[in-house]
Amino acid sequence: MVNKEHLQVQDQEVNETLYGVSQDTIRALEEALEEENKKQVKKLIKPLHAADVAVVIEYLSPHLRQRLIEILLPHFDPDILTHLNETVREEVVEQLGTREIAEAITGLESDDAVLLIEDLGKDQQKEILESIPMGERVILEEVLTYPEYSAARLMQREIVCVPSFWTVAETMHYMTKEKNLPDKFYDIFVVDPKHSPIGGIPLSLLLRQPAATKVADIMMVDIKRIPALMDQEEVALLFRKYGLVSAPVIDEGGRIVGMITVDDVVDVIEEEAEEDIMLLSRVTESDFFEPLLSTSYSRIRWLLISLISTLLAATVISQFQHTIEKLVALAVLMPINAAMSGNAGMQVVTVTVRALATRELGGANMSRAIWKEILVGLINGIVFGAIVGSIAAFWFADPALGIVLGGALIFNMIWAAAWGVALPILIDKMGMDPALSAGPFLTTTTDLLGFAIFLGLARFFLV
Amino acid sequence: MVNKEHLQVQDQEVNETLYGVSQDTIRALEEALEEENKKQVKKLIKPLHAADVAVVIEYLSPHLRQRLIEILLPHFDPDILTHLNETVREEVVEQLGTREIAEAITGLESDDAVLLIEDLGKDQQKEILESIPMGERVILEEVLTYPEYSAARLMQREIVCVPSFWTVAETMHYMTKEKNLPDKFYDIFVVDPKHSPIGGIPLSLLLRQPAATKVADIMMVDIKRIPALMDQEEVALLFRKYGLVSAPVIDEGGRIVGMITVDDVVDVIEEEAEEDIMLLSRVTESDFFEPLLSTSYSRIRWLLISLISTLLAATVISQFQHTIEKLVALAVLMPINAAMSGNAGMQVVTVTVRALATRELGGANMSRAIWKEILVGLINGIVFGAIVGSIAAFWFADPALGIVLGGALIFNMIWAAAWGVALPILIDKMGMDPALSAGPFLTTTTDLLGFAIFLGLARFFLV
Repeated sequence: MVNKEHLQVQDQEVNETLYGVSQDTIRALEEALEEENKKQVKKLIKPLHAADVAVVIEYLSPHLRQRLIEILLPHFDPDILTHLNETVREEVVEQLGTREIAEAITGLESDDAVLLIEDLGKDQQKEILESIPMGERVILEEVLTYPEYSAARLMQREIVCVPSFWTVAETMHYMTKEKNLPDKFYDIFVVDPKHSPIGGIPLSLLLRQPAATKVADIMMVDIKRIPALMDQEEVALLFRKYGLVSAPVIDEGGRIVGMITVDDVVDVIEEEAEEDIMLLSRVTESDFFEPLLSTSYSRIRWLLISLISTLLAATVISQFQHTIEKLVALAVLMPINAAMSGNAGMQVVTVTVRALATRELGGANMSRAIWKEILVGLINGIVFGAIVGSIAAFWFADPALGIVLGGALIFNMIWAAAWGVALPILIDKMGMDPALSAGPFLTTTTDLLGFAIFLGLARFFLV
Repeated sequence: MVNKEHLQVQDQEVNETLYGVSQDTIRALEEALEEENKKQVKKLIKPLHAADVAVVIEYLSPHLRQRLIEILLPHFDPDILTHLNETVREEVVEQLGTREIAEAITGLESDDAVLLIEDLGKDQQKEILESIPMGERVILEEVLTYPEYSAARLMQREIVCVPSFWTVAETMHYMTKEKNLPDKFYDIFVVDPKHSPIGGIPLSLLLRQPAATKVADIMMVDIKRIPALMDQEEVALLFRKYGLVSAPVIDEGGRIVGMITVDDVVDVIEEEAEEDIMLLSRVTESDFFEPLLSTSYSRIRWLLISLISTLLAATVISQFQHTIEKLVALAVLMPINAAMSGNAGMQVVTVTVRALATRELGGANMSRAIWKEILVGLINGIVFGAIVGSIAAFWFADPALGIVLGGALIFNMIWAAAWGVALPILIDKMGMDPALSAGPFLTTTTDLLGFAIFLGLARFFLV
């Protein structure tokens, strides 16, 4: 939040103990690594949670990172890999090599195992899959046939399913005896003879039932069955909307094939919001840990779009060189319109993109939303048209110049509003990510029109 | 994701059944509300989940929204309120009135109850608190003494605590008999005689233990104790980092006072990312459902900052009117520098703000991050300086003009990179939200320097 000084102090005190890794730990580790003091390194790493070791690995410079992994290698905890940022994980996976990764995968649940190998090259994937036990291999190969970003890629195959005729006591007994259960689970699923999920029972409910109760009598029937092909963004929306903690995933025949738990969804929520943030600012996602040159390259790709946009604007201006020569005040004032309508347009694009992402904007309220934005554009256009026009009129002692500037701004702000709300909706309907609209399309038009309308009106009325 | 056409088709088919409310339902409801057909309205609402009713309420126009609530009023499901967007919730709470809200609160767990009344005026809060039962009132009053956005505001008071000397059987027996347990829970907490949490046991683990086992022997001791005053953003980070599903909240004396569950944290993650998105685009958060005039007003506040920034830029340009009159090509080219460095700066600000928010950027890698960004700025400055300079040189057949433009751009891009990474870090250290830096500070400097350096060099070398 904007105003959080109050809580900040408290935070700093507890951070050290709660987060597991303090600045001092990292500094001590850096020192030990520089000195190649393996014993000290191991001593510092040993008490840390896998998530904290991941943080340490991320914080280290690439050079020390490599050295740390070499030291950890003989007994590398596979859980560390699941906590790493994607860019860093790929780097570490590469360093670990095929045999080590195959071993790590065997120790993980299927969703985490998929996470590790899905980004690898086909060849390396095949090599790794060939060196893990048959049972797990079949499961992983099946999950990998589902498209990236689908629900199936998020799910774990390990689930607790019971038939509807079982009692609470039978279910409890099964859970104490069966060894092949997930590490952690929050609901058990009741399935019919075809293995379709017909209900779910939260553990906290199951625990409080008399032993003789039939599971069919206490199960919740309004569970959300997630199709294996559903986009992960949809999965996240469902979990958030209905406050789910776990949900069964079904194949096209309606059979249960796995479950998704909320901890995987939490990452998706963050990822999807992150993607919008990055696209809206024209950056490639997951940029922070990328090495220098690929960061530079991915930024250049987006800046090229800005360059084309601004060169087009320059071309527009060049059509009015004679007008500007005659009235140089135009050169002074012309950036105002482009900047103001560009900013107003970005506001509208951002609100629209997020409203689409969170489903606050849908078919039912679309035309209302478009009209509202156009009206806001009109009101704000008039407000800023009046302000900017008056300033220009007084500044250059030229009322006509003020009227032209103000009038152009009103038009530009209405355009920015209309295009700012319509563009993301159109891009969404075309099946692409609406956040892309902030890139090439919006600012190019606000720039071009910003200069063209002001300078055009000026040529017509003033010079 | 950018490329999701493939999954989109599948999504549309399942949306209707999974989300509970289809477009058709909403249209039918709108019709029934227009006709004031109460029976039909109730029939359409009845099968819906509270979260779906909330969606319907959000989608309706304010006029029909009011009418729907009137119809639902005698038996208004309080769960609907907890699913509403904040702006809409405040509207509905106002319409419901004190007595109805007091009744709703009595039916909710303490975290949801707090959600409903925390945004109300002091007077209305007092009035509502006075009309609910003593027990709940004391709990709510206590929670409300904690600051907004603190962990305490997220927690529910209902928890399952057991002493360490209990066995699994005793714990299970307690859970079947005790009536005052939370609706849903995922961990039970083991406390010492002072009521400090000393361990936690996931239900899925508890279930699988022999009845005679002592809870002290199976509890996880590395639980994360959340201080009641911790900022909600920190809480979200902890849950995400360690994959927590629930965690105990402790007061200053270390005593357990409640627990936070992951469903509340999921909303915080979304809110905090949303806040960054909105601030980076200079919009006030939770904008989508705001009425026309307050939307316009909140946008104007941010646009005023853009106006001041662009007016300062105009003032800079006005210092160079004579130079521009002599060489009008300057007017054509000058927006390029400001736009390119503004965009490059926003890229850096965005990556830095998010890296700070997710703790990928911290004290240990700060100077490395700053140097990396400056180098990226240098590389990209040289790339675009060369491109832009060559274009200008050919366009106006004036190599000196190209050199001046390219040189200015290199300087501007390095500045944008350095300031873009340093500014959020500085603002963060001052205890404010780093996303604010995208607002007034970054673009003002890139604009001013963009124009000043190019025009200044031009006056010195070209005219």
